[in-house]
Amino acid sequence: MLSNSSRTKLKKAAHKERTDTEVLHQIIDESLIAHIAIAEPSGPVVIPMLAWRVDDKVYVHGANNSRLMRNLSKGNMTCLTFTLFDGWVLARSAFHHSAHYRSAVVFGQFEKIEQRDNKDQLLNHFIEQIAPGRCEDIRLSSHKELDATMLLAIPLTEASVKVSSNEVVDDEADMDVPAWAGFIPYKTVVGPLRASSTLNGGIEEPDYSPAYAKRWVEK
Amino acid sequence: MLSNSSRTKLKKAAHKERTDTEVLHQIIDESLIAHIAIAEPSGPVVIPMLAWRVDDKVYVHGANNSRLMRNLSKGNMTCLTFTLFDGWVLARSAFHHSAHYRSAVVFGQFEKIEQRDNKDQLLNHFIEQIAPGRCEDIRLSSHKELDATMLLAIPLTEASVKVSSNEVVDDEADMDVPAWAGFIPYKTVVGPLRASSTLNGGIEEPDYSPAYAKRWVEK
Repeated sequence: MLSNSSRTKLKKAAHKERTDTEVLHQIIDESLIAHIAIAEPSGPVVIPMLAWRVDDKVYVHGANNSRLMRNLSKGNMTCLTFTLFDGWVLARSAFHHSAHYRSAVVFGQFEKIEQRDNKDQLLNHFIEQIAPGRCEDIRLSSHKELDATMLLAIPLTEASVKVSSNEVVDDEADMDVPAWAGFIPYKTVVGPLRASSTLNGGIEEPDYSPAYAKRWVEK
Repeated sequence: MLSNSSRTKLKKAAHKERTDTEVLHQIIDESLIAHIAIAEPSGPVVIPMLAWRVDDKVYVHGANNSRLMRNLSKGNMTCLTFTLFDGWVLARSAFHHSAHYRSAVVFGQFEKIEQRDNKDQLLNHFIEQIAPGRCEDIRLSSHKELDATMLLAIPLTEASVKVSSNEVVDDEADMDVPAWAGFIPYKTVVGPLRASSTLNGGIEEPDYSPAYAKRWVEK
């Protein structure tokens, strides 16, 4: 169960709130991107970052000399938001149009992950989520490359989740308006692979479909 | 051309920077979702909101009594970020894996749009972007519904755009690593329409494909 702090309690549309951790994890795993806030003197800034989850923490990585990574590594209070857009609900009145979406808002502070905390394995985990089995084929990172990479983790202890998946709702008085009513679905499809022009002959195309399937691939 | 303030100048990866307004507009139009920051005493908060563009302004709407809308309407400095994820670049070394993405970060202050500023038409514009021609079929908003809806606009005067679309880059020493190298594309597909179970017989399915096409629909 997720925590229920004053920050994560929904003020409006409480029926959209979800409190199970499984839904939170699914949204994060499917999103790939976290929108992360940092507070600057001139106002808040929102930066998109690749993000992945291992167990009950979310990880982001970047260059050691990145201003953003240095800011996040200081343990300032931050917010990560993950959003999946699933489609439009088309009602008979303009007012009742709405959207299907799933979103998660995570509050907390990042901490730096060092090599003694299995930094290399946590980074490899990201590649395995994108392309299962790939870490057996590629050249893994050298000490120098690992040293140049900052890895940060944030625990999933304070989070709120919203899922909007309502049917078309119209006012009784509008039910005879001669407009089409229903849903336009949106989804992400993945693949097919495109080989690099530099690829050596004789290397077979790998099958990464177990990862695609999580993102609703269409053939 | 976009402005080039100290906030929008890229510190790193300057080759990814784009300064043409057309790319900014494309990213916003395809995104549908803006991740918007508000500064709270306990730290920054990032909220996903539906957002659409008309000419050189971005619009968001919500209930008049929404805490978020009230906060944004006060003219506090804010940041809106739009991100499109286009796929993974799979290199021969773990270190050189990367992503294709397009993102836009907009800074500024929202202002409230009143009926004298064509509030109803700006709201209808959003429906027309989703489903061209739909405003001719549906019941448009009443005065009461318009009064219950807050519409906010932010000008696109201070923004930065990043486009990452690099080919696979590997170290010369890794070119003989026997790993597949290339790209996994991700894209959003739209449709087919799903009629509501409450739809009256005799209403034909509309053709909203001009809007889908902008989002790379696959049949």
